[in-house]
Amino acid sequence: MIFKHKFRVRWVDTDTAGVMHFSNYFRYFEACEEEFYRSLGMEPDRIRGKYGIMLPRVETACQYKAACRYNDAIEVTLKVREVGTKTVTYDFQILNEARIAAEGFVKCIAVNLDWKVVDLPEEFTKILRKSTL
Amino acid sequence: MIFKHKFRVRWVDTDTAGVMHFSNYFRYFEACEEEFYRSLGMEPDRIRGKYGIMLPRVETACQYKAACRYNDAIEVTLKVREVGTKTVTYDFQILNEARIAAEGFVKCIAVNLDWKVVDLPEEFTKILRKSTL
Amino acid sequence: MIFKHKFRVRWVDTDTAGVMHFSNYFRYFEACEEEFYRSLGMEPDRIRGKYGIMLPRVETACQYKAACRYNDAIEVTLKVREVGTKTVTYDFQILNEARIAAEGFVKCIAVNLDWKVVDLPEEFTKILRKSTL
Amino acid sequence: MIFKHKFRVRWVDTDTAGVMHFSNYFRYFEACEEEFYRSLGMEPDRIRGKYGIMLPRVETACQYKAACRYNDAIEVTLKVREVGTKTVTYDFQILNEARIAAEGFVKCIAVNLDWKVVDLPEEFTKILRKSTL
Repeated sequence: MIFKHKFRVRWVDTDTAGVMHFSNYFRYFEACEEEFYRSLGMEPDRIRGKYGIMLPRVETACQYKAACRYNDAIEVTLKVREVGTKTVTYDFQILNEARIAAEGFVKCIAVNLDWKVVDLPEEFTKILRKSTL
Repeated sequence: MIFKHKFRVRWVDTDTAGVMHFSNYFRYFEACEEEFYRSLGMEPDRIRGKYGIMLPRVETACQYKAACRYNDAIEVTLKVREVGTKTVTYDFQILNEARIAAEGFVKCIAVNLDWKVVDLPEEFTKILRKSTL
Repeated sequence: MIFKHKFRVRWVDTDTAGVMHFSNYFRYFEACEEEFYRSLGMEPDRIRGKYGIMLPRVETACQYKAACRYNDAIEVTLKVREVGTKTVTYDFQILNEARIAAEGFVKCIAVNLDWKVVDLPEEFTKILRKSTL
Repeated sequence: MIFKHKFRVRWVDTDTAGVMHFSNYFRYFEACEEEFYRSLGMEPDRIRGKYGIMLPRVETACQYKAACRYNDAIEVTLKVREVGTKTVTYDFQILNEARIAAEGFVKCIAVNLDWKVVDLPEEFTKILRKSTL
């Protein structure tokens, strides 16, 4: 499954060159991730409470293909690339008028509330794996 | 005493109009506040630990007089306007090449770590009051 | 008319205290303003092109009444308070579960593309005034 | 040459988990890049004017090794990895109390003010290459 969510590029996310600042692509990736969890029936703010885990990022990357400008109607897509024992990796694309504006990934690791690396909870893993079918 | 700290306007803080985004003035106010506490010998991240308080904002305002652009060397000034029983109010100015670019204020209230409003600790109040002389 | 738009508080907009950072309220005000113009049939990125004006902010203020936390479903309301010859002022509220989380305003002034203060275009003024009925 | 610049982690750059948000590492990379150009005698806002080029990013990546928290005194290091005909790639590290908190890179491409890809100006290339000795 590829999850998709539409966003508008906000004025504040652009810079003097008239384009979205490169760091903000990661903000839109994350906003898409939040909506992805919601679409799976998991309110993103309750993952901590329900499963006792947080998902800090261990690796991110982005390739920029075309500029996004103020008010552009972009679509961010998320695909779960891999669910490991302790990690989950998402692939992202940003589409701007059917053109690929950017491609990237975000890899997270499960930690408990004391920041110790732990296994992803079984139920959580199952839900994520199911989303990849 | 008027506390002063110099900053460079960062590229990411500008927008498509080529000027610093209006919301970012408040970020520079806060960065100046952080350096102000350091100048008083209070590392800003230790106020919570030492005094058991946080200082959420209850009111802010800003008047914008002149644009700030990428890489401008701005000076932010902070003056403690008032130290109440439970609140502290700072006045800020942003100077850009000796011109006033913005003026504003930020009013904070003391809460304990459970977010209950409390009195400002006596020692904390004393240090702040002394800074106004 | 009171314009309303719903947003989710994003993780990136919160801080170590677990609440939305005070500067980000102004970002949500602006995002609401962008949706407001869209609702009037004016794509926000075309105001510059169509009317030859920009609307830099001259004054902003916000009173914070209750914290907003990660993933809260907030509703931002915008009401045009006043349309002057050269200025427009919006009143904003942020509602969080029917509680007022914040109230503020943003006052803008019309400038042409050379940053000279100009009158608001007649058609633009008419559309804004109509929205206040 | 490895260029180094110290920063304080600002409150606004942290999130509910009490750590610097992963997207903000790229902001500190860029702030370091701005100071790097200044150290070479090129005010970063004048590159556009002097050389008629901009340096949009085509690829970025970051590996996160250890959290950065509010008020941490971090040191960002920049090393020019490669100066191509049209591209420049910087390697970055973020050091937090002598521990590597993050490692990443940013690859930029030269475009003229119409966003056409162009060769890096000879003088500009020479200055950058010299910095790698």
